Amino acid sequence: MEHSHILLAHGNGGRFMRELIREVFAQGLGDVGPDTQLDAAPVRLPFAGELLTTTDGFTVQPLEFPGGNIGSLAVHGTVNDLAVAGADPVSLTLNAFIEEGTEVALLRRLVAAMAAAAREAGVRIVAGDTKILRRGEGGGVYLATAGIGVRPAGVKLSMDLIQAGDAILVSGPVGDHGTAVMLAREAFGLRGDLRSDAASVWPLTRVLRAMPGVRFMRDPTRGGIATVAHELAQASGLQVRLWASQLPVREPVRAVCDIVGYDPYYLACEGRVVVVVAAAQAQAVLAQLSAAGAPEAAIVGVFETGPKQAIVETHLGGERLLLELEDDPLPRIC
Amino acid sequence: MEHSHILLAHGNGGRFMRELIREVFAQGLGDVGPDTQLDAAPVRLPFAGELLTTTDGFTVQPLEFPGGNIGSLAVHGTVNDLAVAGADPVSLTLNAFIEEGTEVALLRRLVAAMAAAAREAGVRIVAGDTKILRRGEGGGVYLATAGIGVRPAGVKLSMDLIQAGDAILVSGPVGDHGTAVMLAREAFGLRGDLRSDAASVWPLTRVLRAMPGVRFMRDPTRGGIATVAHELAQASGLQVRLWASQLPVREPVRAVCDIVGYDPYYLACEGRVVVVVAAAQAQAVLAQLSAAGAPEAAIVGVFETGPKQAIVETHLGGERLLLELEDDPLPRIC
Repeated sequence: MEHSHILLAHGNGGRFMRELIREVFAQGLGDVGPDTQLDAAPVRLPFAGELLTTTDGFTVQPLEFPGGNIGSLAVHGTVNDLAVAGADPVSLTLNAFIEEGTEVALLRRLVAAMAAAAREAGVRIVAGDTKILRRGEGGGVYLATAGIGVRPAGVKLSMDLIQAGDAILVSGPVGDHGTAVMLAREAFGLRGDLRSDAASVWPLTRVLRAMPGVRFMRDPTRGGIATVAHELAQASGLQVRLWASQLPVREPVRAVCDIVGYDPYYLACEGRVVVVVAAAQAQAVLAQLSAAGAPEAAIVGVFETGPKQAIVETHLGGERLLLELEDDPLPRIC
Repeated sequence: MEHSHILLAHGNGGRFMRELIREVFAQGLGDVGPDTQLDAAPVRLPFAGELLTTTDGFTVQPLEFPGGNIGSLAVHGTVNDLAVAGADPVSLTLNAFIEEGTEVALLRRLVAAMAAAAREAGVRIVAGDTKILRRGEGGGVYLATAGIGVRPAGVKLSMDLIQAGDAILVSGPVGDHGTAVMLAREAFGLRGDLRSDAASVWPLTRVLRAMPGVRFMRDPTRGGIATVAHELAQASGLQVRLWASQLPVREPVRAVCDIVGYDPYYLACEGRVVVVVAAAQAQAVLAQLSAAGAPEAAIVGVFETGPKQAIVETHLGGERLLLELEDDPLPRIC
């Protein structure tokens, strides 16, 4: 790259754009990157199965935070949406909206993190596009990824399968991502060394999807586990009961929530999966999660007949309703 | 929707976001829209063939212009990338980055245009995501689409197939989109009633891809036909000669270029296709283009042995080099 900062001319389809795409994106992605000569890229599915697709946008601020950056997040986020649907992630496409004036060195770090995340999940970024935004018309970098995956025949996961008595598991402590980003912003004057949990859940879901009794999986991102619980209650027509005593929450997350009045149930995770399992298989799935790299996984709740709502049974034995989120406590969290 | 304008809270994963997605996006897209309950959506390919994927980002300003808006552009753009690669477009995914304060009525118009464009191209928008940007951190609306298509076995299109003597065709007048957007901005105090050419090229490419002698197709978007000519020269190692007398350019486009000193060769099209054809089949392809709805198509150039560069033979018989674009005359054109 001839320039150290992005110019508007890096968006015009000409030489500077070609340099940006080749030297920052294609070279930075290396063996997991695209053939930049193609209008559309061929994708080979590793086996015959059901083709799945999904997409996600990323606007996290700051762009870099302990445990990741917007680049790793953009890969993990879309990989995870395929993974919780029971698919093998196969390929991604990438859109980058880059503000004029952005440092090229920052872009290189984001692309390096994307490459590492893609290698970890076994996907290639087969196509991409860049657009440059005028100074003041973008928040540094926005990314959008879309993914293709293939689901083996016989994998059936659906909210429609959920029954009263089913257990709810979570693969690890909740709220690390939301809290780490908040701390990286030094919001409320708070600092700390908590790391985002941003990671691929594919090593977990590939094991879980084939286990008997597993009904449904979802990653609790924006809106946290409360939002997943609410969605599950609405879709199943059942009451979701979560036990506060069972929910894994790291001490720094709890401390920050206590100080600023946030509820960890609503904080975003980026590397956790919520699993709905038939009661009889819940312990087996928990053991398997632990063996597959999620030792802090826990059974955190249950579906029961009752009003279609999500409630938390508190440490003191009381109950409180998990209302659907309205106001936004933490914009640009993912 | 309870609100007439977008709030930050429409991005938080809670009730307002659900309303935005359901009432504006899912309802606006209707039969070509997604099942919003899924983390990843199944895609059924209409026939066995090669799976292709591509993606494109959209930042056009103004968001609405004569002949289209950013919504129709976002569908046509990705459909066209699949189409020129010889594929049947099958499904799209959509990312919307929406600035706080955006009018919901505007969003509804953009979504209606997406739905119409998707119907026209026979694709469904099977998955999507929305993110809300803080006021002043976005230019109204940015969109990103990714697409999946399937290419019939036997369709072979590649820049590697190009030979000296091959003809270059364009399916219609160039520069309408770039000029229409410029006029919509009232840049340089100019006004006019030219319409963007934004449209699906799929009705043309589906016919062309099966014709003997067709080597390669590409849509001349950012950077215009000059940029495509430059890419073709670099990839083929041949000289691209374009004849100024043969290039279809509408009178208002020519007039604007004369006034402001732009070169129509560099102006973006959003509904044209450049086709490389063996010389012997060029007339047959031209006739077929005309029959398929492109009566203004023309043979505009030829590949010849010589330095790998693109030149224009002027009306007076001189030659000028089409240099690769460096400065950006028209940011946010697509």
